[in-house]
Amino acid sequence: MKKTLLALALSIATFSHADEGMWQPHQLPELEQLLKEKGLEIDVKSIAQLTAFPMNAVISLGGCTASFVSNQGLVVTNHHCAYGSIQHNSTATNNLLAKGFLAKDLNEELPAAPGSKVFVTQEVTNITAQINQELSPQLKGKERFERISQLRKEQIAACETPGYRCDVYSFHGGLEYYLIKQMEIRDVRLVHAPAAGVGKFGGDIDNWMWPRHTGDYAFYRAYVGKDGQPADFDAENIPFTPPSYLKVSAKPLKENDFVMVVGYPGRTNRYNTAAEVENQFTQVLPLSKAYREEAIAVIKQHSAEGSEERIKYESILASLANYAKNFEGMIHSYKTGDIQQRKDLFDKGLNLWIKSSPARQAKYAPAVRSLQQLLAEEQEKQQRDLILSYLSYGQLFNTAKRLYRLAHEQQKPDAEREMGYQERDLERFSASMKRLSRSFDAKVEQELMLHFLQHYAKLPKDQRLKALDGYFAIGSGELDVAALRTKLEGVYQATTLSDEVERLAWMGKSVDDFKASEDPLIQYAVAMYDTDMALETADKEHKGKLAVARPQVMEAIIAFNKANGKAVYADANSTLRVTYGSIKGYQPKDAVSYQPFTTAAGILQKQTGIDPFDAPAAQVKALKEGDFGIYKDAVYNNLPVNFLSTVDTTGGNSGSPTLNGKAELVGLLFDGVIEGIIGNWDYDPATNRSIHVDSRYMLWQMEKVDGATNLLKEMTIVKE
Amino acid sequence: MKKTLLALALSIATFSHADEGMWQPHQLPELEQLLKEKGLEIDVKSIAQLTAFPMNAVISLGGCTASFVSNQGLVVTNHHCAYGSIQHNSTATNNLLAKGFLAKDLNEELPAAPGSKVFVTQEVTNITAQINQELSPQLKGKERFERISQLRKEQIAACETPGYRCDVYSFHGGLEYYLIKQMEIRDVRLVHAPAAGVGKFGGDIDNWMWPRHTGDYAFYRAYVGKDGQPADFDAENIPFTPPSYLKVSAKPLKENDFVMVVGYPGRTNRYNTAAEVENQFTQVLPLSKAYREEAIAVIKQHSAEGSEERIKYESILASLANYAKNFEGMIHSYKTGDIQQRKDLFDKGLNLWIKSSPARQAKYAPAVRSLQQLLAEEQEKQQRDLILSYLSYGQLFNTAKRLYRLAHEQQKPDAEREMGYQERDLERFSASMKRLSRSFDAKVEQELMLHFLQHYAKLPKDQRLKALDGYFAIGSGELDVAALRTKLEGVYQATTLSDEVERLAWMGKSVDDFKASEDPLIQYAVAMYDTDMALETADKEHKGKLAVARPQVMEAIIAFNKANGKAVYADANSTLRVTYGSIKGYQPKDAVSYQPFTTAAGILQKQTGIDPFDAPAAQVKALKEGDFGIYKDAVYNNLPVNFLSTVDTTGGNSGSPTLNGKAELVGLLFDGVIEGIIGNWDYDPATNRSIHVDSRYMLWQMEKVDGATNLLKEMTIVKE
Repeated sequence: MKKTLLALALSIATFSHADEGMWQPHQLPELEQLLKEKGLEIDVKSIAQLTAFPMNAVISLGGCTASFVSNQGLVVTNHHCAYGSIQHNSTATNNLLAKGFLAKDLNEELPAAPGSKVFVTQEVTNITAQINQELSPQLKGKERFERISQLRKEQIAACETPGYRCDVYSFHGGLEYYLIKQMEIRDVRLVHAPAAGVGKFGGDIDNWMWPRHTGDYAFYRAYVGKDGQPADFDAENIPFTPPSYLKVSAKPLKENDFVMVVGYPGRTNRYNTAAEVENQFTQVLPLSKAYREEAIAVIKQHSAEGSEERIKYESILASLANYAKNFEGMIHSYKTGDIQQRKDLFDKGLNLWIKSSPARQAKYAPAVRSLQQLLAEEQEKQQRDLILSYLSYGQLFNTAKRLYRLAHEQQKPDAEREMGYQERDLERFSASMKRLSRSFDAKVEQELMLHFLQHYAKLPKDQRLKALDGYFAIGSGELDVAALRTKLEGVYQATTLSDEVERLAWMGKSVDDFKASEDPLIQYAVAMYDTDMALETADKEHKGKLAVARPQVMEAIIAFNKANGKAVYADANSTLRVTYGSIKGYQPKDAVSYQPFTTAAGILQKQTGIDPFDAPAAQVKALKEGDFGIYKDAVYNNLPVNFLSTVDTTGGNSGSPTLNGKAELVGLLFDGVIEGIIGNWDYDPATNRSIHVDSRYMLWQMEKVDGATNLLKEMTIVKE
Repeated sequence: MKKTLLALALSIATFSHADEGMWQPHQLPELEQLLKEKGLEIDVKSIAQLTAFPMNAVISLGGCTASFVSNQGLVVTNHHCAYGSIQHNSTATNNLLAKGFLAKDLNEELPAAPGSKVFVTQEVTNITAQINQELSPQLKGKERFERISQLRKEQIAACETPGYRCDVYSFHGGLEYYLIKQMEIRDVRLVHAPAAGVGKFGGDIDNWMWPRHTGDYAFYRAYVGKDGQPADFDAENIPFTPPSYLKVSAKPLKENDFVMVVGYPGRTNRYNTAAEVENQFTQVLPLSKAYREEAIAVIKQHSAEGSEERIKYESILASLANYAKNFEGMIHSYKTGDIQQRKDLFDKGLNLWIKSSPARQAKYAPAVRSLQQLLAEEQEKQQRDLILSYLSYGQLFNTAKRLYRLAHEQQKPDAEREMGYQERDLERFSASMKRLSRSFDAKVEQELMLHFLQHYAKLPKDQRLKALDGYFAIGSGELDVAALRTKLEGVYQATTLSDEVERLAWMGKSVDDFKASEDPLIQYAVAMYDTDMALETADKEHKGKLAVARPQVMEAIIAFNKANGKAVYADANSTLRVTYGSIKGYQPKDAVSYQPFTTAAGILQKQTGIDPFDAPAAQVKALKEGDFGIYKDAVYNNLPVNFLSTVDTTGGNSGSPTLNGKAELVGLLFDGVIEGIIGNWDYDPATNRSIHVDSRYMLWQMEKVDGATNLLKEMTIVKE
């Protein structure tokens, strides 16, 4: 019986596919044979070392990936990753977003948006043993959560030195911990970006779509002090000399060519339980999609197209639309695909495998049960929590809370403070206080709050928060919308938090100062504090329990896969990963084939002159003239623009260099396709495709249209 | 100089392409070599003869094409061609549209919609000489138009015998005339139609689209009296024995296979001038598209979804939407393609060629100038004429006019009456009076009239019609919309024309009866009569002039093409034509390829359960089971559903049999693709594709899902 169960269990487990996997560099030597067969030409050991070329040329921007492409700190990333900095330097009369920007020399370079950073990874240390030896099995719930948090802070504190930032990352839900040290370059400057009609061509309409024709690239430069160490912006600073940089390829690239992508993928959920998957796709995503679409409608309704207000919200709107489309695609993929069946089957296989051995039964079964229980508890109040999270689109309300929290945290010694409120976080904190001015309008916020408070008011009373009900006078009867609007108008009129100087001033004030304030938003923060703390405590208790159950279940999953002869990569967690694959089209639906490259012909086909299909006149003219020089593709007899590959990527990978077998930059990853959008949960080899901008298109546009000869000279272009 | 001009002219002329052409059967022997190379296996002479197989198996339904597929008068055509008959037999409680219909034997067959006919072509005679010898060059304008009209009527009268209908068709704008005699079978019965979820799968959303998955087929049966002659519906009638019928193929079909389509294409404009093309695509179509979309909005606004009223307008709505989409596609193709440049070039070449010879100059130049002048005159009032034509969506207003016109015409001897009002037309006339009840709602019509009268009221006063202004009290100031609505409500309340019996009763009344009537719609007809007659006279004058200029220009075009060694086919004119080509996909845009076959996989991908993607449960089940038997395609390893070919077709070809090289039926033509929608004006080999339902899909659905074994037994299925 046991044998049969085991055989059945193992036959069920089909998990990883060709080209699936976001591998930690140190895992790559295990895959050496496969990588060589696929087309890797450089020594696999070199991509296993973070301190050697090409790994040390790849950097994080925090949320995006980038890479050095010259020995003078020149950085290339996606246009959409540099968007905030281009926007920051744009005014109504000098709209760099619309017309593009090129610094002809170092003096013309512009400061990036406040808070922009370049992180260069220095060291990665496995500290699992150090963490675990401090975690007694007796530690449960909140205590365990806080102990882990404290241990992470201790590790970070011991690691950090001026100009260097450390972080502890958990892998496999807490099964392993790594301490990562990064150089934090904080003088970042904008060097070059094509016009939005190139860099954002297709905009939201083409987002997640193939065929795609977006020149999604831009250039930064990293600056340091004369001593070579990170420094605040200063005219005397000098370009950073990176440990290595990538050569840029102008060579032919074709279907089936090997490519690899190095970057910082943000988050995946490849190992979640079948129940989690079902809840996510049938409950959370449909609700989140609806709320985002509602938020878009509210913002658009209260900010006229082209107005100052609308410009402030463009970035928020883009993000809302991006995710709403993402969620829609995910829901569609889930409904039309077989992920649920396969997840059910995998869980079944795993449970059979556990059940088929008393040792495994004893070791893993309680954790599996515990995880199920914890997830069920979470789901009970997930709609409430979702609505509360959408109230943070009332950015000023949220800011008041963060400021008051800071006052509380600052009463404690630095090491005991909540992460995000420590001394090391204050610069980032004040940057966010400053940034707010550029993306905030009182009337729009007020309507967003009003909208989501109406959702909140419909929750069952036992799920609502007394403090919140009290502040907004939300009772048990029908909500008086007019009265609530009047209340919100009053709040926004009376508060001084909309003033940047006032906001920054509150960063130094005491809890008593807050309690004494008559500012209605400060009063809101004070009124909500105890409730928020109670919610946070409950959340920590829950996370502490999860921090026991999840790693154990993950351990079972890894062992189960190992029994099937399969290597396991960890879910993405914003740490440096390598993924490999090849250039390949796909079949999105019956009778339709997508080719792996788009060409300039498609730009002219899409061009209407109206945003987002508004390629600049100079580009259109050059495309029609067809002088593509060495960048012309022989197969398509045209200029290649974007290409598809099978590499396994997700958000955070944006801006990642796409490398050929020689580790030369052949493109920049910037998106995935809608048919593979469920990729964060499930890699389907038939439809998982990443979208890259072809380096030949970048180089052509820079040479023939934008005249960026200074940068072309600075970079090392490989022509054969 | 002359020689250079001629060489230039001839080098410019690039007109017909491979697979372009809607050929008259008698032209086919000229193409024998080409057809053989392409894959025609039967003797080309047999497809040149209208009285031999397979031509005499192909029939017209008037607006659609069909073919005999058994020796008992079984007819196959498109579902959308039989739609009116399925709708006619549907009620709210027995919705044949929704569930489909199958007569298990002759007794269960249902009468088709009133006025349904099957036309079997008997003879085609070139009567150009007879017509021309009666047309003196002195006859101009209206006189010429009326003389031609009279000659046509004389030819028709001499040809027609009971049960047979004759018509004179002009080719090349009047350069040639053919007299065509057709047997007119008037007892037509509905035999079989799949559920709308098969026959209309994809609906308006998929209309003109590839990939397509529509089972667009249905079966009629033609009945005659016991004497074998056409007869009114009678239980004693017997199935018609056709002169021949098509075998239906269940054999493999693949990319590049030869196919030909025989049918009755309605109308093309392949030889219009560059100026006509420009006017059509930049003026007429944008306006027509807007008006149709407005009409759709008005109808939807005033008929709730699923209501009795909405059901009455479904067919009109479908037609409006179909054309609006068509127009949109045409405008897009025009804007993104190069038709205008090529037309300009062709006209330039033609004019150079004429200019390069004094003889040609004398012969053709005046006609070219005259045509230009006439077209310019037409354009001056085209917006007014367009608006007036949209007023006919006030069907009851239009009906009143037609009835009053009939009273006038009936005062004349039959031969002198306007065509459409002769004795031979009266049955059709009364059928249309009856049909109206099924597609008419007073409230909706009233709002449509109100809408288009508002457009009319904005026209410059000198373009408006005094009688119309007077009837609706439209003055020079701002239109009083409320008063107009009240007026229209009053008209619809007071008129008795909404009653079928009343309408039919007016068919027998005199002009004086009309003049004495107090029915406001009859009064409208009386009030408008003189104005309409004046417009008609002006129109005849214009057409008479065109009837001189157009054939002469066409003669020049034919001679010019002949000088280039090119055969010329006539523009489509609802007469029997043959077009050939091969099964082939295409590239709709950069980086996207369409394969030539769709499969059942696509039905399951599109299926949502919601109209128009609501394949019946029985079909979905059978598709999932995948028992495709002999109908499974080996290349796709699935059931083929629809396919694409390069044949040159247009509206009117709907329902046409698609034949292989042996003249076996391999499919039914039912649509074209949006990228080739400009086809009526321009054949582009890269994007001109017709869409066919694959006979294997029809046969599979009939066998495995609908259980139409009686029909499968009746037809001759070719399996190898």
